[in-house]
Amino acid sequence: MGEGRGRVTLAHGNGGRLMRELVRDVFARQFASSELDINADAARLSAFGGRLVFTTDSFIVDPLEFPGGDIGSLAVHGTVNDLAVSGATPRWLSLSFLIEEGFEIDLLARIAASIGEAATACAVVIVAGDTKVLPRGHGGGLYICASGIGICAQDLALGMANIREGDCLLVNGSVGDHGTAILLARHEFGLRGDLLSDSASVLPFTEAALKIEGLRFMRDPTRGGIATVANEISLETGFRVVLDEKALPITEAVSGVCDMLGYDPLYLACEGRVVAIVAASQARCLLAAWQSLPGGGLAAIAGRIEGGRRGVVLRTMLGGERFLAELEDDPLPRIC
Amino acid sequence: MGEGRGRVTLAHGNGGRLMRELVRDVFARQFASSELDINADAARLSAFGGRLVFTTDSFIVDPLEFPGGDIGSLAVHGTVNDLAVSGATPRWLSLSFLIEEGFEIDLLARIAASIGEAATACAVVIVAGDTKVLPRGHGGGLYICASGIGICAQDLALGMANIREGDCLLVNGSVGDHGTAILLARHEFGLRGDLLSDSASVLPFTEAALKIEGLRFMRDPTRGGIATVANEISLETGFRVVLDEKALPITEAVSGVCDMLGYDPLYLACEGRVVAIVAASQARCLLAAWQSLPGGGLAAIAGRIEGGRRGVVLRTMLGGERFLAELEDDPLPRIC
Repeated sequence: MGEGRGRVTLAHGNGGRLMRELVRDVFARQFASSELDINADAARLSAFGGRLVFTTDSFIVDPLEFPGGDIGSLAVHGTVNDLAVSGATPRWLSLSFLIEEGFEIDLLARIAASIGEAATACAVVIVAGDTKVLPRGHGGGLYICASGIGICAQDLALGMANIREGDCLLVNGSVGDHGTAILLARHEFGLRGDLLSDSASVLPFTEAALKIEGLRFMRDPTRGGIATVANEISLETGFRVVLDEKALPITEAVSGVCDMLGYDPLYLACEGRVVAIVAASQARCLLAAWQSLPGGGLAAIAGRIEGGRRGVVLRTMLGGERFLAELEDDPLPRIC
Repeated sequence: MGEGRGRVTLAHGNGGRLMRELVRDVFARQFASSELDINADAARLSAFGGRLVFTTDSFIVDPLEFPGGDIGSLAVHGTVNDLAVSGATPRWLSLSFLIEEGFEIDLLARIAASIGEAATACAVVIVAGDTKVLPRGHGGGLYICASGIGICAQDLALGMANIREGDCLLVNGSVGDHGTAILLARHEFGLRGDLLSDSASVLPFTEAALKIEGLRFMRDPTRGGIATVANEISLETGFRVVLDEKALPITEAVSGVCDMLGYDPLYLACEGRVVAIVAASQARCLLAAWQSLPGGGLAAIAGRIEGGRRGVVLRTMLGGERFLAELEDDPLPRIC
């Protein structure tokens, strides 16, 4: 008789090591199949010429409404973005609402309207839904589970397996905005600001990237931020990922708040950003395409895939190196 | 300035009138599209020849493990069944886990194993997943949101719009087993029993029904039971639905417990049952097919579509009629 495997902690939900191990050891071993890839944002289905892409995500956020969005638009953008970074055109969404008893119907209606607007803007249709009511005290007000289906080109071949030494890492805008906006919106720090979440569809950016021949892989840096995406890449490929502090776009507002509160913006969630890995020869071409898109002014070549020891390092402004570890215990309030 | 639309109550989740109105007034008006049908178990997508069917459902059940299943197998069967009653062959599932901080990892592993077994038995693959951890006190232990994709025949045309006066209503087995098993498993009544949930895939039954030419419509009587399905049919078609008490299969164990506790088994959830509406001329043919399947021994022609006043009535053993109203306030503990 063993002692059991212990209990789930908040750190199991932070996108870092504990979550990765939970998914691998508890879920993936039971659900093993050729179509399940726990390193992918979305699954490519083995029918209709491999053109169908399927994803799911749950959304829990406190507060439910925040500067730049709400849980509803976040659910639409998050699902659209998981399909977009997989190289697909998002088409259909399903939404499942877990509503706590006592929830205001007017607030629910505002969130539903926000979902409708975001879906229209992203050209996706909501085709299926479900509503459950949780007894008072058994829910955080509202949780939304969203799934999405998209269509990709038959010959699409994106994935971490394509990544090569010397490739460049690009990001389409400033990092940490969503996470910081949520921290401020909680008022628990006595701070207020006009910082907006970056919650948005990244589809225009992924569409532009798909036209670049040397595109290897894309991912949206949500839970755990860009540092976590870089760690996932390093773990999976065995390469070293070097981020360049000078090049990394972080707004003054975000770095000011993060300095004050002691958070590292590289670990804070973005909800309208995409990280792309491309062949070095094509990096400037993708950068130019991204910078010409609305909202792409801060796009940057922010890192590089290198040989040598596995891991993620930040090359600092002063020329030093700082190790960016995989998240272990939860150093962050729950923000996504 | 109005007073607002009030707050969500448990009755908004019971499958009855309040839920229908919430879905119609708050969600459907914002998500309107030709592909969204709030009366369907699953959506038929407008691509790949209309052969793709997509559904979503959240699973909350207390206790998480019960005689005859657990929340994991329930999530697989529930999603498989929504696709099956839509006339599709279920193929791919996504699962999103909302886990409360402090949840036992061993229990999670048992549930994951149960999911794996159920998926294998139903020949579906789990291709996408998500894990979120809810802070202690913000969740009921574990919620699972499942979405599924199935494939149907291009010329499939099932739907309530096909239902005609004189059609027969069949059910493939006894009703109320799941709901009653859950009530007993809660121990709050000081009762124990060996009653098992009927949680199972209905795919063999829907496949048999699809071979019957006069098949009009199928639905799985989950939340709100067979009385709620009958009400949905009556509301949508304008016909009267007459259920026949003598023919309705209810086990002695279920009717004994329900009598004692004051519940009507016709409103209790089934999780391995399907209701089919077929042309009267084909009813005995479908009945024979169902009765020949494993687990189909209690299948019955249990009702009829009639003209006259809209509504659902139970023709009792004694020849009287009892009106089976749409659920209003929540007369039942939350069991699904």
